[in-house]
Amino acid sequence: MSDVLALDPAAQDLLFREARTANAFTDEPVSDEQVQAIYDLVKYAPTSMNQQPLRIVLVRSAEARERLVAHMADGNKEKTAKAPLVAILAADHEFHEELPRLFPHFPQAKDLFFGERPVREGSSSFNAALQVGYFIIGVRAAGLAAGPMTGYDAAGINKEFFADGDHSVLAVVNIGRPAENAWFPRGPRLEYDEVVTSV
Amino acid sequence: MSDVLALDPAAQDLLFREARTANAFTDEPVSDEQVQAIYDLVKYAPTSMNQQPLRIVLVRSAEARERLVAHMADGNKEKTAKAPLVAILAADHEFHEELPRLFPHFPQAKDLFFGERPVREGSSSFNAALQVGYFIIGVRAAGLAAGPMTGYDAAGINKEFFADGDHSVLAVVNIGRPAENAWFPRGPRLEYDEVVTSV
Repeated sequence: MSDVLALDPAAQDLLFREARTANAFTDEPVSDEQVQAIYDLVKYAPTSMNQQPLRIVLVRSAEARERLVAHMADGNKEKTAKAPLVAILAADHEFHEELPRLFPHFPQAKDLFFGERPVREGSSSFNAALQVGYFIIGVRAAGLAAGPMTGYDAAGINKEFFADGDHSVLAVVNIGRPAENAWFPRGPRLEYDEVVTSV
Repeated sequence: MSDVLALDPAAQDLLFREARTANAFTDEPVSDEQVQAIYDLVKYAPTSMNQQPLRIVLVRSAEARERLVAHMADGNKEKTAKAPLVAILAADHEFHEELPRLFPHFPQAKDLFFGERPVREGSSSFNAALQVGYFIIGVRAAGLAAGPMTGYDAAGINKEFFADGDHSVLAVVNIGRPAENAWFPRGPRLEYDEVVTSV
């Protein structure tokens, strides 16, 4: 099937078929330049009304790493402690403050669509999740492996890293070059006919 | 910055830099073979505990297209009526029924993590949103343009297309070859320093 696609097979392998969620990494550091290249690529992927609610905290200091690891589930602590770089990906529920600049041809969007916090939280959580997906693809586009995790005390991370109360962590992602034996055997995927129906 | 990435520049352009949200399409049809090739690529991208909650309904018949258009926001009706293919992307909140097969090395996941419906809905909504992001990238990998929309009566679509009450629409996506003048000028993106911080 892969020749039906316009994307060349090597890129298909890099981003999807051969890319795997990594649980162990080499010591090679991940630079800010690499993260910037990832961001400068995936920032172009779409969000509703161009709202771009994703925010990224790079956990660079040993002190911050300790604070994060304390909130990770037991099975995620060791790999989060050891990864070359760890990123906290969060939704900014006050994204609407930037909308007049980001979506200038519809100045009412800020109030008409997103005036109420529950509406904003629904939209920022969905759109930032889209952007988490784009970011994982971007890490792979950089030739790196991502180890996305959702096993943690979310309230604890929110309080520890987003004291304003306006952000919700969506994923914590370990990033680096995969070590040998960095992953488990790949789990089965649902068949096309289990996922796609026609009406 | 793009030469910091492992992904070749043509693929970067195809998936991110030159790809755009399309509002108008040519008449060229989108085949089931193309959708299957997209699915068979993006199915490999990761979800929490391999849960894969995304379900896709291809709106193929004129009758179903009419039913869908009735629930779209006014500004989305015409393009949804005219697109070569329209896909409804939804989260399946009963995804946990498949977990013993999809995540076999942890048989307790079905009940321990996902025994309660609100927990399942949170997880399926987040993970299916990741998969919406992957799907949009996959459409572009097929050399097609995606027109993802969130402007519709969600309760109406859920009732009309998912009578079991176990699915929530997350996006409706028009798919096809972009027509001339298929898009608006690209909106501004947030700068790296507005999105990424280090601690």
